[in-house]
Amino acid sequence: MISIDDIRSAARRLDGSVVRTPLLAAEWGDPQRPLWLKPESLQAIGAFKVRGALNAIGRLDADEKRRGVVAYSSGNHAQAVAYAAARFGLRAHIVMPEETPRIKIERTRAHGAEVVLCGMGRREAVAAELVEQTGGSLIPPFDHPDVIAGQGTIGLEIAEDYPDIANVVIPVSGGGLASGIGTAIRALCPNAQIFGVEPELAADTAAGLRRGTRVDMPIEDRNRTIADGLRSQPSELTFAHLQHVLSDVLTVSEDDIRSAVAELAFKARLVAEPSGAVALAAYRRHVMPPGPTAVIVSGGNIEPALLSEILTASAAIGEDQRD
Amino acid sequence: MISIDDIRSAARRLDGSVVRTPLLAAEWGDPQRPLWLKPESLQAIGAFKVRGALNAIGRLDADEKRRGVVAYSSGNHAQAVAYAAARFGLRAHIVMPEETPRIKIERTRAHGAEVVLCGMGRREAVAAELVEQTGGSLIPPFDHPDVIAGQGTIGLEIAEDYPDIANVVIPVSGGGLASGIGTAIRALCPNAQIFGVEPELAADTAAGLRRGTRVDMPIEDRNRTIADGLRSQPSELTFAHLQHVLSDVLTVSEDDIRSAVAELAFKARLVAEPSGAVALAAYRRHVMPPGPTAVIVSGGNIEPALLSEILTASAAIGEDQRD
Repeated sequence: MISIDDIRSAARRLDGSVVRTPLLAAEWGDPQRPLWLKPESLQAIGAFKVRGALNAIGRLDADEKRRGVVAYSSGNHAQAVAYAAARFGLRAHIVMPEETPRIKIERTRAHGAEVVLCGMGRREAVAAELVEQTGGSLIPPFDHPDVIAGQGTIGLEIAEDYPDIANVVIPVSGGGLASGIGTAIRALCPNAQIFGVEPELAADTAAGLRRGTRVDMPIEDRNRTIADGLRSQPSELTFAHLQHVLSDVLTVSEDDIRSAVAELAFKARLVAEPSGAVALAAYRRHVMPPGPTAVIVSGGNIEPALLSEILTASAAIGEDQRD
Repeated sequence: MISIDDIRSAARRLDGSVVRTPLLAAEWGDPQRPLWLKPESLQAIGAFKVRGALNAIGRLDADEKRRGVVAYSSGNHAQAVAYAAARFGLRAHIVMPEETPRIKIERTRAHGAEVVLCGMGRREAVAAELVEQTGGSLIPPFDHPDVIAGQGTIGLEIAEDYPDIANVVIPVSGGGLASGIGTAIRALCPNAQIFGVEPELAADTAAGLRRGTRVDMPIEDRNRTIADGLRSQPSELTFAHLQHVLSDVLTVSEDDIRSAVAELAFKARLVAEPSGAVALAAYRRHVMPPGPTAVIVSGGNIEPALLSEILTASAAIGEDQRD
């Protein structure tokens, strides 16, 4: 389990390399639970993932750095590792499924990474081969203490900016983000409630925490949610952290998520991806304890066609009903 | 003319009351002119206007504060003054034209201001009557040294974050924003170029600076631009500042503005109003000296229907062409 000291070390390591995102007051929140937004969508590559990647890569020793890094991902983690490796001047191999949208492959290559395409279900095997061939270090998306500590710097910033925060609301997928932020908030704001959020269609952690052990939900089921960044499941390491730090896991519907994407665009002037909007969706759907509430907007990489579809549908309902 | 000392005083006055917006690295800019975005769209009420309003109201003496404030505006200034007055616990009367969209009236009222509706062309007269009746102080949108100094704090922050900035690009309407930022940058980054930006359809300042004196452009002409926040013209005070601080005024087409709104949404994950996107439009349209370039994203209050229209048209072109 990581500690607040690990997160403080990570914060020193990341200083100047990540955006110190402001905590934005959203005047249009519930007056009983003043709403504050933490817009990690403003990080380079548009998601919090750079924090964990930079911390994990920054902790490699000189010899490891010389051999470079390897990762597998079709999502934000691919670009985060490519970006972080480039910041350190390291070679990066990123394994991506052949069916990954070309735009994501190109954005990963744009950071100088070598993209290795692979067939369905072959990502981990191909990455292992690359580690063998290059001697590089595998940077996992969440199942690593340095990655968790890097994401935890978000919690440190919230505690600095608002020590009396009452609720902190965090998307949960593999659980690295909630593990890290939760560890920081538990240590620094012991009275705060910490809520994880999952889509109803990928609520394995909600079920697992109730049962006291990890619950496996078929990937075909989890793939149904529009929140494509929330289709992973915790590892043993992150699940242990989540058991320790979370007050509860809340779930939200697909409609809740779409409404939250529109609300963030029209009221907070932030473009969020569906996965990045679930914490606001939970704030709207569920009754939390009164008091100031920080909601993590974890990422903003939404397909243009999906964003315009959601905003068009929302604009058609009319401003008056939304306000 | 205001000085850098006035801006420093304003910064002390605003500390903790405005968002210290980060300067965001946009990796997708021109490599010769690395692009940095200053997202003032993240301020309360979604625009830089709160800085000037808070500074002007903060400088009132106790007796003036007791009598409250008056402003006239159909745009962001109305909400900024209402917001700032509420922060100080003051009474505010805001004069708005009868044809102002109801949503803007309601948002202004939501800050506790008394909205006084008036007929076309009657705003200034009604505001003058209110000043007479209440003894309140008129807070103008740009024609006031304290308002200019408040907006100038944006320049101070840019200079702190990036002392070697090569170009600073700023929307120009009444000129308060460019006067303030320009004064700060001239003082602190003497080698930087400072560009104002206007829509081609409201390019009175571009013409005026060439001629060396203010040029009046009919309001019917200026009203044609989609950038509804850029339809004003400088006062004597702001024009004198602009003559002193600007390297040049660049103009952009309506299509340039729409493209910049889409680029900000899809690449920077920021919702900008057309007026808030003109500086990025100019960065794309014009050749500037090489070097790091800061672009002010001045506001994000766009009508939902217009945002979805612009994003839908842009998404239809396809991601591949945009990247």
